[in-house]
Amino acid sequence: SIDAGRLLGRLHELGKIGRDGDGRLVRLAGSDADKAGRDALVAWIRAAGLEVAIDRIGNIFGIWGTADNADEASILLGSHIDTVIDAGIYDGCYGVLSGLEVIQTLKSAGFVPARPIAVAAFTNEEGVRYAPDMMGSLVHAGGLPVEEALATLGTDGTVLGAELERIGYAGSEEPGFLRPHAYVELHIEQGPVLEREGVPIGAVENLQGISWQRVTIEGEANHAGTTPMSMRRDAGHAAARVVTFLRDRARNANTPTVATVGCMSFEPNAINVIPSRATFTVDLRDPDEGRLQAEEAALAAYLAELAATEEVTISVERLARFEPVTFDRRIVELVEEAARRRGLASKRMTSGAGHDAQMIARIAPAAMIFVPSIGGISHNPRERTPDADLVAGANILLDVVSRLAAQ
Amino acid sequence: SIDAGRLLGRLHELGKIGRDGDGRLVRLAGSDADKAGRDALVAWIRAAGLEVAIDRIGNIFGIWGTADNADEASILLGSHIDTVIDAGIYDGCYGVLSGLEVIQTLKSAGFVPARPIAVAAFTNEEGVRYAPDMMGSLVHAGGLPVEEALATLGTDGTVLGAELERIGYAGSEEPGFLRPHAYVELHIEQGPVLEREGVPIGAVENLQGISWQRVTIEGEANHAGTTPMSMRRDAGHAAARVVTFLRDRARNANTPTVATVGCMSFEPNAINVIPSRATFTVDLRDPDEGRLQAEEAALAAYLAELAATEEVTISVERLARFEPVTFDRRIVELVEEAARRRGLASKRMTSGAGHDAQMIARIAPAAMIFVPSIGGISHNPRERTPDADLVAGANILLDVVSRLAAQ
Ligand SMILES: NC(=O)NCCC(=O)O
Ligand SMILES: NC(=O)NCCC(=O)O
Repeated sequence: SIDAGRLLGRLHELGKIGRDGDGRLVRLAGSDADKAGRDALVAWIRAAGLEVAIDRIGNIFGIWGTADNADEASILLGSHIDTVIDAGIYDGCYGVLSGLEVIQTLKSAGFVPARPIAVAAFTNEEGVRYAPDMMGSLVHAGGLPVEEALATLGTDGTVLGAELERIGYAGSEEPGFLRPHAYVELHIEQGPVLEREGVPIGAVENLQGISWQRVTIEGEANHAGTTPMSMRRDAGHAAARVVTFLRDRARNANTPTVATVGCMSFEPNAINVIPSRATFTVDLRDPDEGRLQAEEAALAAYLAELAATEEVTISVERLARFEPVTFDRRIVELVEEAARRRGLASKRMTSGAGHDAQMIARIAPAAMIFVPSIGGISHNPRERTPDADLVAGANILLDVVSRLAAQ
Repeated sequence: SIDAGRLLGRLHELGKIGRDGDGRLVRLAGSDADKAGRDALVAWIRAAGLEVAIDRIGNIFGIWGTADNADEASILLGSHIDTVIDAGIYDGCYGVLSGLEVIQTLKSAGFVPARPIAVAAFTNEEGVRYAPDMMGSLVHAGGLPVEEALATLGTDGTVLGAELERIGYAGSEEPGFLRPHAYVELHIEQGPVLEREGVPIGAVENLQGISWQRVTIEGEANHAGTTPMSMRRDAGHAAARVVTFLRDRARNANTPTVATVGCMSFEPNAINVIPSRATFTVDLRDPDEGRLQAEEAALAAYLAELAATEEVTISVERLARFEPVTFDRRIVELVEEAARRRGLASKRMTSGAGHDAQMIARIAPAAMIFVPSIGGISHNPRERTPDADLVAGANILLDVVSRLAAQ
């Protein structure tokens, strides 16, 4: 079994890195806070006696290989250590630090792996500063050219490649250099299912599709006091209509579709000026690709109708689009079997969040292990998982990895 | 008649002062751009041979008095030179520069006024950076203690008093030092009525009530992908509901009520995080005080209902509240008479915008003169009035002032 104290200690230590002036955890990809988190991780990887490798998109790998298995494809574990704004300490970090913990445990137990075992911290999984999300793993899987990824413009006007150079994490390895034989990612559920059903282990068999768009509505600025309601071309009002349309449609449907408007801004943003422009993001998700396409089409039709009735101009930019993913059935069964052997209940489930595993699944058998999130809360400083569940999840990862690395 | 070239030249010169990097006119109260505009105005007042006085709230006065009329209350003209964000060049500036033009014309024509004639540029009429609007004239009229006004916190975290000190316009006169016998304000209509009806002169007989509020909605941040629609406490969605509620209510009512949400912001404002907080402004106006109160009550009831159904917390802060104002009937008649004598059609009308005249009306007979706005557009760089209408308006002001100052 893994060293619970060491794992939990590192998790809390990493969770202290990247607090802003108000004490909020904000460790956005490519930021100074990200650099500080990466430095801590690299030091732990080195202390565990693993080789450190960094590729051009900034993905960090800690690799445990032997002379005997040097030619084999690796068992790859991992997740990410970048965060959203005002984040919890578990999302991503738990998977990376558990991967390291599992390798360190196997190594000091004298385990002899048939193939290298490596842990990865992928760059910019959250996608908050640079879209799309899961960028580092997407590049690793060959789904996005590294030059294109490095040129991505951030919400703050920065360019990812320049930021990686700045913080010293523009590495030299060619993305994809490490060939995975299988990939396993341990993560908090970030949703309410496991806690509600009292099940400690989720065997994640699929992951829903993700559609991200940025919508810009152009109306006409005018005086809030003198312009009759019938003569307005109010971009802010049109944006609000889209928000309520998406919410009502997703809420009233008898489907798992979720729709979120997370970012919103008005221009000129003055109290007595009718907004001339509104810009907002739309995050649409569904486990079924056909239904996700239908939701995208319904939004497009609504925007076209709104443009006509409100006399506004609407443009849409696609920020990310990933189809639903089915994970590897054999690894899912290994997770279930490991849980059974440790006397823990498990449940097959769908991931509502996007994860690096969905990208690596393009090039290798992959699956995920979930542990419960208290109250289903994530992307929130109140994100929490009981220590016992965190330790149990890491032990399941240990068991699955020792099976995968044995041959 | 006034010197049309001089008036229009100054108007265009002032309109060049305070352009931002993108060429947008942004001369917010107390800013560096405001200082540059004030400096130009003060130079013109001095060049016209008037006395310059600046009071503690930064109101600028250009005073033409004589030894004979020094004890009399003044005929006060004026408006403001601060602007909204991405403004036109006419709003406010036209009234101030016409006031100066009228005095300069009377002075050089050898007119002998029975009382001093003064032009005022009141501080922070727009209220975009510091609420409430019409602040300088409100302080002059004794409606707001100067200490309270100077302590006002801006949308950018600055304090008005400190900004006035910084730009050198925290004057020494006690607000209200200049006693008005009557007040006349010339302004662009900023609405569509005069142009639509082909009437060059508006004789403004009243001004609608203004209610400004800032609403803050607190929900709960959570993951956009994992949180079922039924488990969300989405502050952004709740804010959008308020926007559509206000718009539908005002639009469907058979009343002149107008409702605007000009400012909006979400927190944490990340694409895959359900908003934990939304903050926005509400600008409600109606010429009828009873109806304005009914609209405020309807909004309050809706917010209470929304807080319950959406499980969010809502707080409301009042930013400005002014009752409708009726202007002085005798001055309105002088405006109509002046138009008649110059062979111009005029129309009695209501002001949809707030103006310094509504504040000075508390302490002296006051009224306003409007000229047409092309397309009814204001608070927009496309704000425009034909030169002939601008000149005609200034000549009506000249005629009214010479009548008022004769006794
Ligand atoms: N796990 C996680 O929060 N990933 C961020 C990408 C997403 O929005 O699902
Ligand atoms: N005239 C004018 O635009 N005043 C600003 C105050 C307001 O009416 O919002």
